[in-house]
Amino acid sequence: MTHDDVPALPTADDFPVLWPVPTRWADNDHYGHVNNVTYYSYFDTAVNAWLIAETGTDIRELPAIGVVAETSCKYLGELTFPDRLQVGLSIERLGTRSIVYALAIFRERGEALDERDKALDLAALGRFVHVYVDAKTRTPVPIPPDILSAAKLLVVPGTK
Amino acid sequence: MTHDDVPALPTADDFPVLWPVPTRWADNDHYGHVNNVTYYSYFDTAVNAWLIAETGTDIRELPAIGVVAETSCKYLGELTFPDRLQVGLSIERLGTRSIVYALAIFRERGEALDERDKALDLAALGRFVHVYVDAKTRTPVPIPPDILSAAKLLVVPGTK
Amino acid sequence: MTHDDVPALPTADDFPVLWPVPTRWADNDHYGHVNNVTYYSYFDTAVNAWLIAETGTDIRELPAIGVVAETSCKYLGELTFPDRLQVGLSIERLGTRSIVYALAIFRERGEALDERDKALDLAALGRFVHVYVDAKTRTPVPIPPDILSAAKLLVVPGTK
Amino acid sequence: MTHDDVPALPTADDFPVLWPVPTRWADNDHYGHVNNVTYYSYFDTAVNAWLIAETGTDIRELPAIGVVAETSCKYLGELTFPDRLQVGLSIERLGTRSIVYALAIFRERGEALDERDKALDLAALGRFVHVYVDAKTRTPVPIPPDILSAAKLLVVPGTK
Repeated sequence: MTHDDVPALPTADDFPVLWPVPTRWADNDHYGHVNNVTYYSYFDTAVNAWLIAETGTDIRELPAIGVVAETSCKYLGELTFPDRLQVGLSIERLGTRSIVYALAIFRERGEALDERDKALDLAALGRFVHVYVDAKTRTPVPIPPDILSAAKLLVVPGTK
Repeated sequence: MTHDDVPALPTADDFPVLWPVPTRWADNDHYGHVNNVTYYSYFDTAVNAWLIAETGTDIRELPAIGVVAETSCKYLGELTFPDRLQVGLSIERLGTRSIVYALAIFRERGEALDERDKALDLAALGRFVHVYVDAKTRTPVPIPPDILSAAKLLVVPGTK
Repeated sequence: MTHDDVPALPTADDFPVLWPVPTRWADNDHYGHVNNVTYYSYFDTAVNAWLIAETGTDIRELPAIGVVAETSCKYLGELTFPDRLQVGLSIERLGTRSIVYALAIFRERGEALDERDKALDLAALGRFVHVYVDAKTRTPVPIPPDILSAAKLLVVPGTK
Repeated sequence: MTHDDVPALPTADDFPVLWPVPTRWADNDHYGHVNNVTYYSYFDTAVNAWLIAETGTDIRELPAIGVVAETSCKYLGELTFPDRLQVGLSIERLGTRSIVYALAIFRERGEALDERDKALDLAALGRFVHVYVDAKTRTPVPIPPDILSAAKLLVVPGTK
């Protein structure tokens, strides 16, 4: 916190996982920048792709699936094709039946020789709430064990 | 056919069905016109929406589903949000296991008092080939009777 | 407000404008329902299409354009192609340089003989914040007069 | 050519450039595979991203821009998120004012230790015709020198 109690913006170090997402030509809209809607497809893709990779499971075939209950995004910087992005993944609340992700979109700047030196500009902050439901009845059920184990890796200490 | 054997471009009258499709803000790309990719979503939507409406059936729940084997589009005019469009639907070949649609996209011009007076500018011509496969095994099967009855309404005499 | 101080969910009557939006085939995702990302394209399209229609102006050519600073959505019901939707438009805060829209997505149910009798099921609630910036420098500027006049029609008394 | 004069399907070696494109969650449609429309966004993105990378120029700011006159795709195999793809880029006709790209989509199979050993399954073949027009008047003009130099690298001997 700063003197004025304004929380500082997060950096890439605040996210346990960074998931790479390249932009597509059609992501740009009439104004020549990435359309606001498309940011959510970056979040959506990064969360699900990471869960599939980390669990080694096709999460869509589990008896319980995550349906999206709420999403939000603050747009902090313009993006444009052909930007390369990294989606920062973290979990701010890991419940019994739901997961609240705190997400970020970073734009890769310049061409670093060393991957770790790549400068990342914060472009957006988002939230994404998954509620687990029975794949057939769509009634709320506990988070499947595979997902829960993976999700624990994204929980950031100090959040609740 | 004209004197030079160049086939004349079709008009709205050449299509048994016109299906309305409005554009969306995000359809426009960097150049401020509808992205070439999006034209196919107009075709895709019109064909399937019309089949669902005409058969009164959720075609996705039938034992045989139509998978897309081939598509093509010639772009004849620019489109831009908030254009309102009509997709012309016709069938140029109705086989036992596949359907070849000949499609067009017309842009509504001006604001006609009478719906039938609305001027329609041809913006694109397309083809869309559906092959019917078993919903589970994905092996080719005959076109389901419901789809076949509907499809006959779109066959244009003189094509084969 | 109810006895428990839980705000009642809004109905179509709470929105000065309802803007029709049909779904598209590709809006459905792997789970057979409209993908969470796509709801934002309904908001985006409805707000901008209404502004263009109401002002009679191509708002993209004005010296000041609205860029999106923040969006959010609560998902209250499933949607699926070929649902027909109405986007409820209202403004909860009309500032000097920014507009906060309160939006809703309603699903048309059944086939009413009379358009006004059509049952509308609430499927989502959203917020959409436009900040006006100079089209070239992208620095904040006052809302253009054309937009301001139109926006006043969407302000709901009792909100601030 | 085989005995029956059926042209053999191309392999990755037939394309001078392979451009990587990951799938996105929302690319999947109701049937749980990548929607036919989306294949064109892979083509669109690969062609333009490669041109921008190879020329080192923002091709959208050139006095002449490429507008799409015609596209087509044959679907040879199913794709599904989270597949990783490689778009094969080649040019079958390099004209004075237009370029005809012959494209392919390959699915990466398995996890090769060596990038070059990665198995690539052919999933689609496409064509994409760019016509160069003056960015303002939209009348046909010669291909800009920067684009022409890059394009020559994609011309496959033996095609015309």
